Amino acid sequence: MHKIVVLYPPQPDPEAFKAYYVGTHIPLARKLPDLKALRYSFDVQGVGGDSPYFCIFEAEFSDGAALGAAMGSPEGQAVAADVPNFAKVPPTLIHYPAESAA
Amino acid sequence: MHKIVVLYPPQPDPEAFKAYYVGTHIPLARKLPDLKALRYSFDVQGVGGDSPYFCIFEAEFSDGAALGAAMGSPEGQAVAADVPNFAKVPPTLIHYPAESAA
Repeated sequence: MHKIVVLYPPQPDPEAFKAYYVGTHIPLARKLPDLKALRYSFDVQGVGGDSPYFCIFEAEFSDGAALGAAMGSPEGQAVAADVPNFAKVPPTLIHYPAESAA
Repeated sequence: MHKIVVLYPPQPDPEAFKAYYVGTHIPLARKLPDLKALRYSFDVQGVGGDSPYFCIFEAEFSDGAALGAAMGSPEGQAVAADVPNFAKVPPTLIHYPAESAA
């Protein structure tokens, strides 16, 4: 499995972010080719302090090649191009191979 | 499902971090009560830039109460107490409900 995780810092209008995210952005993300799983949460909490992130998004692909192909596809480009429409503070994006170890 | 994610920034001695992490810390984490899944990666890459994180750890529990109980258990306290032994730059910890949406 290969995952992409998007970490959104606090936003100036969290309710507007949530409405756009659920209504527009997630439907775009669901169209990503060969997407195996998708999760997100607006209920991100810190441990021993405030969370530096307000929203987390995770998508799973079978391997890094599938992730790369998905992000390079027209659907992936549409997802990426949509981010500035709602994320007034830009997110941090990371990806990594995520094999289960337990 | 409820997840805890630990995001480690770059470390001054990454090889020493990796050796301790795999040899000592992950075996402690595997002992967490009611742990459903555990994943980690040292191969975290950025998208459109460098990754601000060097290592990511994810653990899954059935719900937030199970996570809280695990972290409050002697095994959870041992895991938390072990972090300063290898993370010279402290990590960011977040937790959130993570229901699959696709």
